[in-house]
Amino acid sequence: MLKEITENVRKKTPLVHNITNYVTVNDVANVLLACGGSPIMSDEPDDVVDITSICGGLNINIGTLNKQSIEAMFAAGKRANELGHKVLLDPVGAGASALRTKTAVDLMEQVRFDVIRGNISEIKTLATGAGTTKGVDADVADAVTDANLDRSVAFAKSFAKASGCVVAITGAIDLVADAERCFVIRNGRPEMGRITGTGCQLSGLMTAFLVANPDRILEAAAAAVCTMGLAGEIGYANLQPNEGNSSYRNRIIDAIYNMDGDMLERGAKYEIR
Amino acid sequence: MLKEITENVRKKTPLVHNITNYVTVNDVANVLLACGGSPIMSDEPDDVVDITSICGGLNINIGTLNKQSIEAMFAAGKRANELGHKVLLDPVGAGASALRTKTAVDLMEQVRFDVIRGNISEIKTLATGAGTTKGVDADVADAVTDANLDRSVAFAKSFAKASGCVVAITGAIDLVADAERCFVIRNGRPEMGRITGTGCQLSGLMTAFLVANPDRILEAAAAAVCTMGLAGEIGYANLQPNEGNSSYRNRIIDAIYNMDGDMLERGAKYEIR
Amino acid sequence: MLKEITENVRKKTPLVHNITNYVTVNDVANVLLACGGSPIMSDEPDDVVDITSICGGLNINIGTLNKQSIEAMFAAGKRANELGHKVLLDPVGAGASALRTKTAVDLMEQVRFDVIRGNISEIKTLATGAGTTKGVDADVADAVTDANLDRSVAFAKSFAKASGCVVAITGAIDLVADAERCFVIRNGRPEMGRITGTGCQLSGLMTAFLVANPDRILEAAAAAVCTMGLAGEIGYANLQPNEGNSSYRNRIIDAIYNMDGDMLERGAKYEIR
Repeated sequence: MLKEITENVRKKTPLVHNITNYVTVNDVANVLLACGGSPIMSDEPDDVVDITSICGGLNINIGTLNKQSIEAMFAAGKRANELGHKVLLDPVGAGASALRTKTAVDLMEQVRFDVIRGNISEIKTLATGAGTTKGVDADVADAVTDANLDRSVAFAKSFAKASGCVVAITGAIDLVADAERCFVIRNGRPEMGRITGTGCQLSGLMTAFLVANPDRILEAAAAAVCTMGLAGEIGYANLQPNEGNSSYRNRIIDAIYNMDGDMLERGAKYEIR
Repeated sequence: MLKEITENVRKKTPLVHNITNYVTVNDVANVLLACGGSPIMSDEPDDVVDITSICGGLNINIGTLNKQSIEAMFAAGKRANELGHKVLLDPVGAGASALRTKTAVDLMEQVRFDVIRGNISEIKTLATGAGTTKGVDADVADAVTDANLDRSVAFAKSFAKASGCVVAITGAIDLVADAERCFVIRNGRPEMGRITGTGCQLSGLMTAFLVANPDRILEAAAAAVCTMGLAGEIGYANLQPNEGNSSYRNRIIDAIYNMDGDMLERGAKYEIR
Repeated sequence: MLKEITENVRKKTPLVHNITNYVTVNDVANVLLACGGSPIMSDEPDDVVDITSICGGLNINIGTLNKQSIEAMFAAGKRANELGHKVLLDPVGAGASALRTKTAVDLMEQVRFDVIRGNISEIKTLATGAGTTKGVDADVADAVTDANLDRSVAFAKSFAKASGCVVAITGAIDLVADAERCFVIRNGRPEMGRITGTGCQLSGLMTAFLVANPDRILEAAAAAVCTMGLAGEIGYANLQPNEGNSSYRNRIIDAIYNMDGDMLERGAKYEIR
């Protein structure tokens, strides 16, 4: 299944419109190109309706949001909905500021999302209004662990049911759930947290996977998480002496560029609950 | 000729003002430093007139344009014209949205450009109003090929004559034309299309080449195209096992950093028609 | 001393709010992660007060400033002052435009900074209103050299006294001074000037050092300068054949990622005057 999903991305070259933060945007573009997609960025309200119309999917990431880009998120989201495009929300820093929380909540009310992808603190904020956050990183106290896995899986399914979206919660253990099923994924490396934007990159990548696999969005979202995590493992193995987080960033994107369906099938570590 | 042109850049350290998109801006800055130029970025309307005044050239790139940066493009362009600076237009995504097309067309009417550099779909949009586009990439149906080369060269010369600019159309085969002569350039690698922003980087680089060679802008533009393409070839040859598009990006900029005039003379592949 | 200062950063993981330019922001984030800090970026006036409140320090960098981000700088700076956070000013391009000079001067009047870090031309502009500048790089005529070192040290101390801030002037020879003492630092490589944003990276890194060492800000600022310079030396030594400025950028950040307190103690080259 994963093999076919990832090969669909390379076959179809999905064009993804990204409204995303200026911190990690270059890596988001390169990871989309690495996986076989095609990125376009636009966050001007007067530009986004046209741009999203020629794309197959929309990735809304609220990091470094501003008044203009927020207006653009709503305009693009509504247009993408009208056209039946795949739409993903990455609620970066929800819980860290009132504006970010409000923007994410309002977006969920006014735009129909296929997937919401964030860390556990951001997702808890959206689900319960009670998440805490350490800036743009998850609070350790919230982390999904083997000790709380049953409860965490139930939470993910429950929020997926309530929101009507596939919910992807990423961390040391990743959960990708709809109301019925939850992929519990154990790919990745802790050192990925020392690179800025691996979450943002995953959101871009995942949107391309959704566009190329429109009838299997749960599986496509899970495949994207496995791809990113496996690339983190391969990139880590490829590190040369004296390299650190900046080179690691390159090696992860390189690993996605060089990954094929068979590698993903072999390397993915998941169970379905 | 190419040798002297590229050595002039290193000798004169041209200061280039860039109003450019936030996706690829870091690579644009590093490629300008790599070739021997010096970059400065500013897109606030109240800042750009002062900034462009201390520079030798202005690179206007309309990717991720917004209302403020559009205002800045016109203000900076007019000031640069008053001062006789070299000015380049990179019409990213012209044809993909009404705002981008209109902005590019209006800029051409109100600012005098020395060079317009884009892919074939963007240039056709500006020349005929009839280009199609696949986001920020050229439509395959538009591509310059050996089969349509005579017609493409005639189109480039004709648009150069009509616009009064040197026209640089980049793709598998690159064309750099004024009304009389057209450089047909065959440097580069197809894998460069899997890196975000090689076109943006070329526009920054080219502006430095223009500033350092003010009396030979056709040749300077062609030299910049050869430099970027040759760097793509050298960077590709320098790729190590398991590297992909992210490392390739670094290796191309590195190749420009290490390129001298003799390497360019030997490696450039062009004919003049 | 340097050992303890740098180890405090890794122990405390200081969260740093950055209002910074979009050219070098990704490298600023990765360098903060490399040294053991945690970055968050926000420049929307309605977002910054909340964001800065959850951080320990604020890094204000005026490169690519715009009307909205300027408003955000004042709002965040005042809030950070109320909370007793460490605040740093990087006056990128002060002297290059009236808006940049005015913004830096106004910030100094309305926000209490712990450290001001810039090149000699930017600092002279703030100190005397008479700096000249070559874009965002220092004017060679202003450079701190062995020939003018006594005078330069006296200038740094005098401006530190007048402004009430620690003053960090970086260049071939770096000066970090309060009213009484001046660290004269000789780490670094001239090739660092061929990478965009090593100064911006240093400002981000330095803010993390200040937050983690609140009672020794002169020493913490000096330690950050030594760290960046030493990383430049190590990264240069780690360059592989055919690499240039783009790979060098990665290798410097990698060197910070891999640097420990003992390496810094051994490699730092400074005297106190």
